[in-house]
Amino acid sequence: MLRTLRAKLPNEAFIYLGDTARLPYGTKSRESIERYALQAAAMLLKQDIKCLVVACNTASAIALEVLREQLAPLPVIGVVEPGAEAGCIASRSGYIAVIATESTVRGGAYEAAIAKLRDARVTALACPLFVALAEEGLTSGPIVEAIAKHYLAGLFSASTRPDTLVLGCTHFPVLIGALRNVIGDGVAIVDSSVTAAMALEKELLRLGLGRSEKSLPASLRLLATDGRERFARVGSVFLGEALDPRDVELVDLVP
Amino acid sequence: MLRTLRAKLPNEAFIYLGDTARLPYGTKSRESIERYALQAAAMLLKQDIKCLVVACNTASAIALEVLREQLAPLPVIGVVEPGAEAGCIASRSGYIAVIATESTVRGGAYEAAIAKLRDARVTALACPLFVALAEEGLTSGPIVEAIAKHYLAGLFSASTRPDTLVLGCTHFPVLIGALRNVIGDGVAIVDSSVTAAMALEKELLRLGLGRSEKSLPASLRLLATDGRERFARVGSVFLGEALDPRDVELVDLVP
Repeated sequence: MLRTLRAKLPNEAFIYLGDTARLPYGTKSRESIERYALQAAAMLLKQDIKCLVVACNTASAIALEVLREQLAPLPVIGVVEPGAEAGCIASRSGYIAVIATESTVRGGAYEAAIAKLRDARVTALACPLFVALAEEGLTSGPIVEAIAKHYLAGLFSASTRPDTLVLGCTHFPVLIGALRNVIGDGVAIVDSSVTAAMALEKELLRLGLGRSEKSLPASLRLLATDGRERFARVGSVFLGEALDPRDVELVDLVP
Repeated sequence: MLRTLRAKLPNEAFIYLGDTARLPYGTKSRESIERYALQAAAMLLKQDIKCLVVACNTASAIALEVLREQLAPLPVIGVVEPGAEAGCIASRSGYIAVIATESTVRGGAYEAAIAKLRDARVTALACPLFVALAEEGLTSGPIVEAIAKHYLAGLFSASTRPDTLVLGCTHFPVLIGALRNVIGDGVAIVDSSVTAAMALEKELLRLGLGRSEKSLPASLRLLATDGRERFARVGSVFLGEALDPRDVELVDLVP
């Protein structure tokens, strides 16, 4: 997600906060996810941000409303609405599959977001092992494909099958090659990061908050609540570039 | 672990606390694991316990000393020492493999505990995906065996190979069938829960704290920091019996 945002908005200054002391969020309850998301937002507000991107599908699916309420008038961009929009655009047949964490699926946020945009049939599947695979950097090969088959083969080998697969977790795009091998070429795979970056750009333009090349230099700060080394190692899988643990600042979200 | 403790000590009253709001511990830093373990212990002390079993290898490997210091004179039983002891007894060749979480391996606790007991060669391997498999209830079949091969095939197909495999994470015993299929019959697989139960029994006897059949009736209380439903579902995999979410009490460890 961060990788796509930086590519799309190369003049912006980004602060990325990873709540590594309590992740993963995808198996936790609504109450905990809301509490954690509000604590994370409070920490970022202290950094004087102009916009908050909730770069986690679980937090977006569960806590976006409460974040918007509590942080108003700060603009808050979630990743579920952009992902749903991209899925709706990609689907011709109107049958859309969403893969996500357990908590995102339980919350029904994708079904709701898609229903606002078009008439569609939606199947949402929890794929918790994908999170563990991505975190471990095991992103391709027979194990990943066997797990992808375990989750998806039934759905995509049915006679009536979805024509679009929305990746409803920011961990999943690194698995895209293995997913493609399992579901075949006929299905559009949708990564919400591209549409989320477009939503962010649009919102910044609308509010007159965008930075030009003449602004202060672009920058990236990395904050984590635990484990600099692991954060740098796992983060480099997602960012596609090496991260130095010494560039990670440890912060405490719990008062 | 709880299952074995209850079978071994059927007259005792058990309180089980699962820190589901922050698990897994196995990928977190020493500082966070110590802090979480102390907070969990403080909650259990309020329940007037007579002995604390740290039924998590990661917390035992990282936080046992600080727990013993802070809680003295309360007896504190970890699972690393019993597991190391069982491994030392089982091994004839003196070449012992330990599989555990990332944090347990990084801490080197098994190597240290085994070195205290006998001269041995120890290979400790982090197997983080096993935790995710066990949590999801995916405990046998081709996917589990493929992941077991991914971690273990190299070690156990070498010409000089361990004759003993210590399961250094309380999640792993549910995977024992798949592990056996991958490493073959010639390797002893050691589950620390049996020796931990023996250590607990010995300690209670030594302190005159054991309960007889004439004591108050045996009982089990289940506490969790998040998600009653998930706790009951995942817990039933480990306990081997159905749990009712309504029997799970939610508690907050963070002041």
